[in-house]
Amino acid sequence: MQLSDLAARLDCRFDGRPDVEISGVAHLDAATSTDLALCAGGRYFESLPRTRAGVVILPLDSPAPPCAAIRSPQPYLTFARALALLRPTAAAAPGVHPAAVVAATAVLGPGVSVGPCAVLGERVQVGEGTRIYPNVTIGDDVVLGRGCIVHAGASIRERVHIGDRVLIHDGAVLGADGFGFVRRPDGVYEKIPQTADVVIEDDVEIGANTTIDRPPLGETRIGAGSKIDNLVQVAHGSHIGRNVVLAAQVGLAGSVRLEDGVVAGGRVGVSDHVTVGRGARLSGGTVVSKDVDPGDQLAGYPAMPVAQWRRASVIFRTLPALKRRLDALEARLAALISKEPQ
Amino acid sequence: MQLSDLAARLDCRFDGRPDVEISGVAHLDAATSTDLALCAGGRYFESLPRTRAGVVILPLDSPAPPCAAIRSPQPYLTFARALALLRPTAAAAPGVHPAAVVAATAVLGPGVSVGPCAVLGERVQVGEGTRIYPNVTIGDDVVLGRGCIVHAGASIRERVHIGDRVLIHDGAVLGADGFGFVRRPDGVYEKIPQTADVVIEDDVEIGANTTIDRPPLGETRIGAGSKIDNLVQVAHGSHIGRNVVLAAQVGLAGSVRLEDGVVAGGRVGVSDHVTVGRGARLSGGTVVSKDVDPGDQLAGYPAMPVAQWRRASVIFRTLPALKRRLDALEARLAALISKEPQ
Amino acid sequence: MQLSDLAARLDCRFDGRPDVEISGVAHLDAATSTDLALCAGGRYFESLPRTRAGVVILPLDSPAPPCAAIRSPQPYLTFARALALLRPTAAAAPGVHPAAVVAATAVLGPGVSVGPCAVLGERVQVGEGTRIYPNVTIGDDVVLGRGCIVHAGASIRERVHIGDRVLIHDGAVLGADGFGFVRRPDGVYEKIPQTADVVIEDDVEIGANTTIDRPPLGETRIGAGSKIDNLVQVAHGSHIGRNVVLAAQVGLAGSVRLEDGVVAGGRVGVSDHVTVGRGARLSGGTVVSKDVDPGDQLAGYPAMPVAQWRRASVIFRTLPALKRRLDALEARLAALISKEPQ
Repeated sequence: MQLSDLAARLDCRFDGRPDVEISGVAHLDAATSTDLALCAGGRYFESLPRTRAGVVILPLDSPAPPCAAIRSPQPYLTFARALALLRPTAAAAPGVHPAAVVAATAVLGPGVSVGPCAVLGERVQVGEGTRIYPNVTIGDDVVLGRGCIVHAGASIRERVHIGDRVLIHDGAVLGADGFGFVRRPDGVYEKIPQTADVVIEDDVEIGANTTIDRPPLGETRIGAGSKIDNLVQVAHGSHIGRNVVLAAQVGLAGSVRLEDGVVAGGRVGVSDHVTVGRGARLSGGTVVSKDVDPGDQLAGYPAMPVAQWRRASVIFRTLPALKRRLDALEARLAALISKEPQ
Repeated sequence: MQLSDLAARLDCRFDGRPDVEISGVAHLDAATSTDLALCAGGRYFESLPRTRAGVVILPLDSPAPPCAAIRSPQPYLTFARALALLRPTAAAAPGVHPAAVVAATAVLGPGVSVGPCAVLGERVQVGEGTRIYPNVTIGDDVVLGRGCIVHAGASIRERVHIGDRVLIHDGAVLGADGFGFVRRPDGVYEKIPQTADVVIEDDVEIGANTTIDRPPLGETRIGAGSKIDNLVQVAHGSHIGRNVVLAAQVGLAGSVRLEDGVVAGGRVGVSDHVTVGRGARLSGGTVVSKDVDPGDQLAGYPAMPVAQWRRASVIFRTLPALKRRLDALEARLAALISKEPQ
Repeated sequence: MQLSDLAARLDCRFDGRPDVEISGVAHLDAATSTDLALCAGGRYFESLPRTRAGVVILPLDSPAPPCAAIRSPQPYLTFARALALLRPTAAAAPGVHPAAVVAATAVLGPGVSVGPCAVLGERVQVGEGTRIYPNVTIGDDVVLGRGCIVHAGASIRERVHIGDRVLIHDGAVLGADGFGFVRRPDGVYEKIPQTADVVIEDDVEIGANTTIDRPPLGETRIGAGSKIDNLVQVAHGSHIGRNVVLAAQVGLAGSVRLEDGVVAGGRVGVSDHVTVGRGARLSGGTVVSKDVDPGDQLAGYPAMPVAQWRRASVIFRTLPALKRRLDALEARLAALISKEPQ
């Protein structure tokens, strides 16, 4: 693709010969003359003078690079879009593979592709252009919207309802039973049937081997635009708002509520029935067991403001020294008091 | 179902017109006149006066609701059973789907169902009424008892032995190799073959994408009635007693022993060769690296009594202030001593 | 197998009758006269006098057992090799099962076995003797080396490159999209296409339901001989060196670099762009957010030297008592000062 064409598609201005030919994308320090690279700021500028890239995406006001440039007010965003243009993913051919097993009552929209050994249950509905990879299992009465992708080995249980453009990675499990039991006086646990449903709104991404459980009543819901990484546990009855980000290995207990725009780092844990307010940010590993106010930034276990956690953690390491100082103070004070005139 | 009929099946007495018709189940504040709802106590009573439910399950001695009532000494348990009656899950039709692959030497009991693309190896035995969902893989010589359910994509490796009424969720892996290697002097790891087996006793539930490994010798065993949530790791040679509860993302290292009735909250970790005594309770996130006495209630990392952990955690946040007080004390004491007559 | 034959194959000397017949392997305290058992040192010696094993593997210089002995300078290693001899795993028969779906453009080496409902995409290459279990999905252009084993339900996405003798357990996902998004000013996240590849070098083992993501650029790489346990997350662009060990539930964020010989215990977490130096050891649960020097042994969150963490943790439990001592000191000092002549 020529520079002028690429810049036009990205809706950006460019510096350099319009006919520079770009065929690949690479890191700034690995790029060659036919590659596009990103220089978003900060440390990137150290590599910029030596780059051999053909074209670099740069902030609007940064100095000229040793090559052609595409200027953007949001270099990361422009780069993400350029990647999609220059390295398009191969789409599976539409159609149902002969080794797929699709119930006669299932309804597939135009352009749907279903891979070998994918199994679609009774009354499943699949929207236009949705791609279902091999060995996926879709239970009875599932609704899958348009333009979704369901990767290999994922399992979508009965009656789960999925919006448009949802991307589900390999091995993810949507709609398995929530973990609910009643303990009898004799110590035996009886199962609470998990009979309600899971709703995934539009534009959600769900990572590999992530699990999202169904509740006994009500629903488990993932709001539009939310992004969930791998190996995340979302328990029964949790409600995740819009544009929420959950990094890998996060665990949400039952009936958790995450309001819009919450960001949780890797392995954050949230106890049952806790609400995390709009836009709150939880550092990796934070464990939240009480409600969190909107916009709060927390860390630690139990969770506290991130600055407080950092300061306390610094002191934690020195606890043995603090204890010795306390021992010494007590001894000196005792000595002093013993010398006092009675 | 009519109230009188429902109450009879639940073995409970009721207040109200016996012919009240109940067709659904809902939360107290979302229920309508044909719904059953639960009022188990505590906060539930706040919603009770305004409920529009047709029937409410109540403790024996609680005041009359604005609707019909089913009275129970164990409202949660009665509710769980009512859910099973009012929202029965659709059972797969018995029979082996033509797209299933079942070895000629496998033996299936009466009423077994095997879904499309499920694969059963040589000499597999499956008990009466067990249901195997699509894309499940069952290795050679596996024994599966009666009334089990194995959901889509689960993998049960060779020779795993599973009792009756075991419920295995999607993507669970039973019998993969334990993680055992010997480090050679040159830094290379040689594998210790993991040749022994996994035994799952009756009435166990295993969550989605949970992994239970086989050991080199001896066995890995999950005791009757134990309930394991999603994304849990049970390493080689661990022995879990009866009626043990492991919440999501728990990790047990090799040769751990959990005695009967142990309860572990989300993401508890237990180090190898540790024994946790009967009925001990480990709060979410607790990391146990030494044996735990029966009945102990622990939290924290390293684990300590939960009350001690709570008190220490409260002080942890204030460590910077404590350090400043210590600094000030030292300064004041030094000043005092310098004023002392020599 | 006779003792003399077994010892010869293990390249060890033995004490006892050369024709002792060994058919099984067991723990020292469970072994019978036809079993081999291991006595590696330490606590093993407590059980040694009472063992009924036919043959025991012993350190070179340890006292004579009540049975025949195989002497080894590395008893664990010898035992691992003996297990492989005495309990060989049944290999799947070579050949492509009729219910497998292999693209016409795929190229399979001699002796390859492909189980039912395994799906191999276009231009996949599979090396000699590699075994692919049922319900595995292998995407287009994947290269799999010789002597690999891919267990049931694993998913290997497009273009992943895998060396020789790699062992992949059930449900593992290699090459799903890294978790990368750009947040737009309106709060919506746009996906950064994850278009680059994953490389797994020779002799790697990957645990059940573990996930290894592909990056947008560059590569994610697992070095030769590294061993990864179950439910581990390796994010996009991480580089793992040779002979690295990651126990279960470890999580590596994006662009992490683990040098050769790093050992991480269960549930270790490493923040993005962090380098962990050669041979460093991270105790279970350690969270590393800064670079780690070669050979360091760390624990805690944030990570610190393991001895420091242990000492600080001991004091942590006593924080309430320390605070009370500080309170008392302040009171006594204040009393003392008030008595001072002004």
